[in-house]
Amino acid sequence: MLERVVRLNADYARAIDDDRLEDWPGFFTEKCLYKVTSADNHRRGLEVGVIYADSNGMLRDRVAALREANIYERQTYRHLVGLPAIVGAEGEVTRAETPFLVVRIMHDGTMDLFATGRYLDALVDDGGVLRLRERVVVCDSSRFDTLLAIPL
Amino acid sequence: MLERVVRLNADYARAIDDDRLEDWPGFFTEKCLYKVTSADNHRRGLEVGVIYADSNGMLRDRVAALREANIYERQTYRHLVGLPAIVGAEGEVTRAETPFLVVRIMHDGTMDLFATGRYLDALVDDGGVLRLRERVVVCDSSRFDTLLAIPL
Amino acid sequence: MLERVVRLNADYARAIDDDRLEDWPGFFTEKCLYKVTSADNHRRGLEVGVIYADSNGMLRDRVAALREANIYERQTYRHLVGLPAIVGAEGEVTRAETPFLVVRIMHDGTMDLFATGRYLDALVDDGGVLRLRERVVVCDSSRFDTLLAIPL
Repeated sequence: MLERVVRLNADYARAIDDDRLEDWPGFFTEKCLYKVTSADNHRRGLEVGVIYADSNGMLRDRVAALREANIYERQTYRHLVGLPAIVGAEGEVTRAETPFLVVRIMHDGTMDLFATGRYLDALVDDGGVLRLRERVVVCDSSRFDTLLAIPL
Repeated sequence: MLERVVRLNADYARAIDDDRLEDWPGFFTEKCLYKVTSADNHRRGLEVGVIYADSNGMLRDRVAALREANIYERQTYRHLVGLPAIVGAEGEVTRAETPFLVVRIMHDGTMDLFATGRYLDALVDDGGVLRLRERVVVCDSSRFDTLLAIPL
Repeated sequence: MLERVVRLNADYARAIDDDRLEDWPGFFTEKCLYKVTSADNHRRGLEVGVIYADSNGMLRDRVAALREANIYERQTYRHLVGLPAIVGAEGEVTRAETPFLVVRIMHDGTMDLFATGRYLDALVDDGGVLRLRERVVVCDSSRFDTLLAIPL
């Protein structure tokens, strides 16, 4: 399972960093949860996230909106994803935690440390393909860039 | 062995980044060495380290002191740990070298590149559990932050 | 194959970061291509690179020049290399893509995010050893530091 999670993470990051955003919803099951939140809010049990989507359709809408906004003209990302820890299994669902770091590269060439944090995932085998039923992106910093737009 | 070292590193980083400091000494054997030094000092063979502990009790004392200082109120870490290279084996001891990068997140949300370097480890199977008999943390930069307090 | 590529990447990064530059050409086949370019130029199909070498001899010359310039007196690198994706296989050649991040540490101790990007590799088994027939280093930022000198 560990190796499958590692590959999923690598493919997920590569799709975003290569500007293949349309592939991104495909990493999630049809019914799913994608949320970006801060460590502070997560610790306090706040359900609210900076970004929240609870269906694959919402993820696809998000990609369409990003395309319209032409966000990739202005910035790209580079994900560095650490090794996942498998932290649980309940029935068909595997739970994993994975640290990440994202560097943002602006169009003028400047780079900055954009975000660090961990993915809290619920994974299922979806017809032979490992997919995310849930990905809660817990960012270490609660100072969110207003440009936060590309999926983490 | 490689996979066991990878898991140990992932668990070690996660314990620190999740603020489960009390779990940290458990990654070391009872008799152990934990040292933080700079590449410069390491190259010149200087034994002295910025942080030095040669027993598990000293590690536990260190955690107690950190708790008292409430250091986690002010900062957290995010470790990104690379792939270990197994560089030797003498009897029961495996030697590994692993690169790392640590981002520090301050309470106000600012992030900075806190440290990079490599772990020089001596690992043993301690009753079925892989533990560190020795972890020398060689930081690339010799400019140590005076706040250096949380384990690397 | 994935595991062999992972090890090659770890060894490659370690040779550079440990200042064993003389070992660096040994990761390439005799006839080879090493190129550093930007994502922008790569996307536009521009063949030109900031650094370009098409034989192992050119790589060795480069190392000799770096030694003469004493570049390591002034800076070192720390590579963090992500998980490779095996993206193709044609005959004896395996193609892989791997994200990386490089931190530069100056002699005065300052650290900066030097480069991020991905390795586009063509790998071959060269008498039992996996070697690079081609490594195109595609940097995300097109703002290249004039000090760009140590291999990426």
